[in-house]
Amino acid sequence: MAKRIITISREFGSGGRFIGEEVAKQLGIKYYDKDIIAQIAEQSGFSAEYIEEKAELSPKKGLLAYAFAGRDITGKSVEDMVYEAQRKVILEIAEKESCVIIGRNADFILKDKDNVLNVFIHGDMPEKVARICKLYNVTEEEAEKMMADIDKRRMTNYRFYTDQKWGMAKNYTLSLNSSELGYDLCEKIIMDCKK
Amino acid sequence: MAKRIITISREFGSGGRFIGEEVAKQLGIKYYDKDIIAQIAEQSGFSAEYIEEKAELSPKKGLLAYAFAGRDITGKSVEDMVYEAQRKVILEIAEKESCVIIGRNADFILKDKDNVLNVFIHGDMPEKVARICKLYNVTEEEAEKMMADIDKRRMTNYRFYTDQKWGMAKNYTLSLNSSELGYDLCEKIIMDCKK
Repeated sequence: MAKRIITISREFGSGGRFIGEEVAKQLGIKYYDKDIIAQIAEQSGFSAEYIEEKAELSPKKGLLAYAFAGRDITGKSVEDMVYEAQRKVILEIAEKESCVIIGRNADFILKDKDNVLNVFIHGDMPEKVARICKLYNVTEEEAEKMMADIDKRRMTNYRFYTDQKWGMAKNYTLSLNSSELGYDLCEKIIMDCKK
Repeated sequence: MAKRIITISREFGSGGRFIGEEVAKQLGIKYYDKDIIAQIAEQSGFSAEYIEEKAELSPKKGLLAYAFAGRDITGKSVEDMVYEAQRKVILEIAEKESCVIIGRNADFILKDKDNVLNVFIHGDMPEKVARICKLYNVTEEEAEKMMADIDKRRMTNYRFYTDQKWGMAKNYTLSLNSSELGYDLCEKIIMDCKK
């Protein structure tokens, strides 16, 4: 089988992670999500908890916080070092084997490689809120706050490191509304997209 | 068969029109593109040529031109009247029968209707330029100019009348890169998306 790399970017609550995990299972290929964090920790020397907070999300204060972050003598902030370690890990993983990679700007990091299918999963508000309430055991109001915060921080991180706008169709090979299409059909379409 | 309405929005040169026509043929449903213009002409009293220029594209001067357009005593510009006629025609068509509708902000006009699949087709520069050169018998430089001009005017028209950003994945059920996936696979995926 030719190598297949599938990156899944997603709105919080859209089920993108679940869909990616199912696709990996059904294709019998590796699934990378939280496990990437341990590898980034090893590469960078930072703790896994610290990386979980920093690697995909912007600082809470948004884009300007990147500009004013403390920098070492090479001009790199801690965020930059974490990002650089993340980039190396993702390139190594994609070199090695077929896999599904969730988030972490993998679409951009791998955009010039062959056999990479970049997918964006988004959804409608009521379904996303209901999913978050169930998964995190929170109220609707809390779910809406979590969603707004996390999507905004993913968006800012993406914007800062890729110079692209998060969620624009043209960054991805394929974008799917999981609320309208359902998870099963999303999985089928992704698997049908052998490039 | 349940009614199926498929709207196709597209970047200039991405083959979206061709893909939509093929899907309509293969599903045996009506295909609406230029034929909508005659109906808008009838509704609005403007000539077909005039509508072809106005109905999907913004004035050449961009968004501000809308603001400064001449208006009648109800505050409506000529562009608004053409747009209103277009909206009515699209709603009537979608009420009547299964069909594929190309462009004309049909995704937004029909967004609250059931059984509507909103598709966005985009592509990569070299393929889009090559396609435009062949279709319109122009040089690469001319093709790039045409593309920049038409996409910008579609974008501005869409922004003005929908308050949404053209090309954002979340406006569409499905977005596809036709250069990476190929036209046949795009057609197959669209046909598989029975909602």
